[in-house]
Amino acid sequence: MRPEISARNDFWRCAWISGYQGNMDNFRLLKNESGARVGELVTAHGIVPTPVFMPVGSGAVVKTLTPEEVKDIGFRMVLANTYHLYLRPGIDLIEKAGGLHKFMDWDGAILTDSGGFQVFSLSPLVKLNEEGVKFRSHIDGSEHFLTPELAVEYQEAFGADVIMALDECSAYGDSLEKVEQAMARTNRWAERCRKAHDRKDQALFGIVQGGVYPDLRRRSVEYLTALDFPGYAIGGLSVGEPKERTFKMVEETAALLPENRPRYLMGVGSPEDLVECVGWGIDMFDSALPTRVARNGSLFTPEGRRNIRNAGFSRMESPIDASCDCYTCRHFSAAYLHHLFKAEELLVYRLATIHNLRFLSNLMQKMRSSILDGTFGSFRSEFLANYQPTNEQTRVEQKKKWLKSKRLTNKEV
Amino acid sequence: MRPEISARNDFWRCAWISGYQGNMDNFRLLKNESGARVGELVTAHGIVPTPVFMPVGSGAVVKTLTPEEVKDIGFRMVLANTYHLYLRPGIDLIEKAGGLHKFMDWDGAILTDSGGFQVFSLSPLVKLNEEGVKFRSHIDGSEHFLTPELAVEYQEAFGADVIMALDECSAYGDSLEKVEQAMARTNRWAERCRKAHDRKDQALFGIVQGGVYPDLRRRSVEYLTALDFPGYAIGGLSVGEPKERTFKMVEETAALLPENRPRYLMGVGSPEDLVECVGWGIDMFDSALPTRVARNGSLFTPEGRRNIRNAGFSRMESPIDASCDCYTCRHFSAAYLHHLFKAEELLVYRLATIHNLRFLSNLMQKMRSSILDGTFGSFRSEFLANYQPTNEQTRVEQKKKWLKSKRLTNKEV
Repeated sequence: MRPEISARNDFWRCAWISGYQGNMDNFRLLKNESGARVGELVTAHGIVPTPVFMPVGSGAVVKTLTPEEVKDIGFRMVLANTYHLYLRPGIDLIEKAGGLHKFMDWDGAILTDSGGFQVFSLSPLVKLNEEGVKFRSHIDGSEHFLTPELAVEYQEAFGADVIMALDECSAYGDSLEKVEQAMARTNRWAERCRKAHDRKDQALFGIVQGGVYPDLRRRSVEYLTALDFPGYAIGGLSVGEPKERTFKMVEETAALLPENRPRYLMGVGSPEDLVECVGWGIDMFDSALPTRVARNGSLFTPEGRRNIRNAGFSRMESPIDASCDCYTCRHFSAAYLHHLFKAEELLVYRLATIHNLRFLSNLMQKMRSSILDGTFGSFRSEFLANYQPTNEQTRVEQKKKWLKSKRLTNKEV
Repeated sequence: MRPEISARNDFWRCAWISGYQGNMDNFRLLKNESGARVGELVTAHGIVPTPVFMPVGSGAVVKTLTPEEVKDIGFRMVLANTYHLYLRPGIDLIEKAGGLHKFMDWDGAILTDSGGFQVFSLSPLVKLNEEGVKFRSHIDGSEHFLTPELAVEYQEAFGADVIMALDECSAYGDSLEKVEQAMARTNRWAERCRKAHDRKDQALFGIVQGGVYPDLRRRSVEYLTALDFPGYAIGGLSVGEPKERTFKMVEETAALLPENRPRYLMGVGSPEDLVECVGWGIDMFDSALPTRVARNGSLFTPEGRRNIRNAGFSRMESPIDASCDCYTCRHFSAAYLHHLFKAEELLVYRLATIHNLRFLSNLMQKMRSSILDGTFGSFRSEFLANYQPTNEQTRVEQKKKWLKSKRLTNKEV
């Protein structure tokens, strides 16, 4: 069931096929090794090698870090969030400050999410109609209305390099009918976003929805690719479904997306998932997981996550990961980090964040190199053989707990 | 009433006059301008220009900062605390890690307080006898016993550059008799510390007590200077008394102390107090105030403290202090800091700490220069004319609240 394209839509679609102002030529594919891709995302704030992981800085800050540190760790692109910044400090304040880059002192690339996911996961009240979505602020309970056009207007005001269409997010467990409706609305909203967008220095990405239903995903891709966006995101995954279903959807959806456009898997960022999904041709990732678990003491190592708060680390005089070149591991013993965690010293949340992000920065670099060398397959096998993922049942429970907690606080998002 | 010196004490006093192992030759006085002094504290971890303010790192960390940042801000010496480190992570752990410098990755100088003040202000239970003090951990309620000898042993294990004798602290409002007893016991304990101490690379300072009673202060100084310590601290001030009494005690006590030894005023660190007390010949200071108030949004400017959380800063696109050269002011607008405070973003506690400490680092540098130039008097007048101190009544109330809160939490100490 391909959605109807109204005469009005047809009109402006024709208009932007020749005259769309957004950045279409923003991606260069350099290598494809059995589906795993290396490329470059070209932005007004620099060229970003892909596959790329983007640290999350929803509120115009990557939690605990200065922009200088984010760059030193190896990142050239971060994610910020329209929902958070609209509510606080407000769109006009950021616009008057000269845009988001200047406001947060970050001269690298920025991708802003449209706020769709956050409205559905954070707002204590959500009322939808075709025009847009009414929601309440999780901060002060005030009521707001967001439309596809406003989501674009706000992101244009920020001046982000990549911006996202407004999407309606389904929850895991929603019926096929409900997910189908949300997918179809997301498609129509994407079309409205496309029409509303005209900043030349930005690329607007469409978001593929469709939950865990392959047919819906396929239809979403068909609709969006007909609109020819400069990039495509896969949304609505990693929201509590079993990992094998996430992986199946990623693999199938990525295979449908056009070769010459970047593919962005939203909300995925555990080391093992990054490796799997790069293998299926994903180019861009974001997730708050690496920084969130860092603040809980969970640190990435080549063998899996280790919780530095465990008593076993209290006397470990070597760093948590002897192979790591991050600032934290170069300067501090596991025992010192353990001590700082026990004493709830603010410094340690930063030191842990630096470690986990550096782990990912190095991981992405290794994946890019191995794809270019034609050795990604063996890199992938070796990494996954060494890396013990979090127990699946624990992971699903943690995720549920986290998704639930988000309705109460923004601290972890 | 000069305390009796026992034959036993006389014996070892003679012993250490010729054979005391501690660092006696640790201070060079370079200039004295009407009482204000410039000198150098010579330590095994570098030469520290005085007057010096030492940032507080009770738990082996200057809250929110890496050692690298502390150094970049301009500090060469920090304070840590025996009480905190004895309870967590423990003396032997730090000793086995190679000492405190190595444990916390700080290669500058360290002064450790003996824990006396913290026992009296943080422990939910304090029982004193001549031998020592029994207290309960504010962390887990466990019971401990600290003696002057143990305080020295622990600080020797840390390997701090300057260590403090164990003192009994009076509270503001204690009777003259009670303060006198505490002062006399502090003197006897100082003598025992002197005897117990034998690390050549450390300087052990005695602590002058006597509350707000000039006669007791004088007697404390006489007793301690007869023991000839390599430095003297003035303790038991800035504990809730009116500021004019603090100042009077500092002025009178400093005047009694030997010219050729460093003078350390414990627990003083507001900009206006530093300027006043340098004028009376104080060489060393520490206080958690600059970093504590920073985390509450209160930032030093040449005109006084400003609270960045106030709505007036929400749209201020310039830094909080246009004259400031700190990392924070060089990179971020007041509006951005305001936003981060509103969003309770962890980064901002660091950015505020950096600003306040840089303000003090610059202030100490200006004082040293002006003393060397012979212009300290006019610098002092000009600074105090511009700097609006915190309202005295507010200050005393805040201090009381803080002293009270310390019994409940260690977060702010």
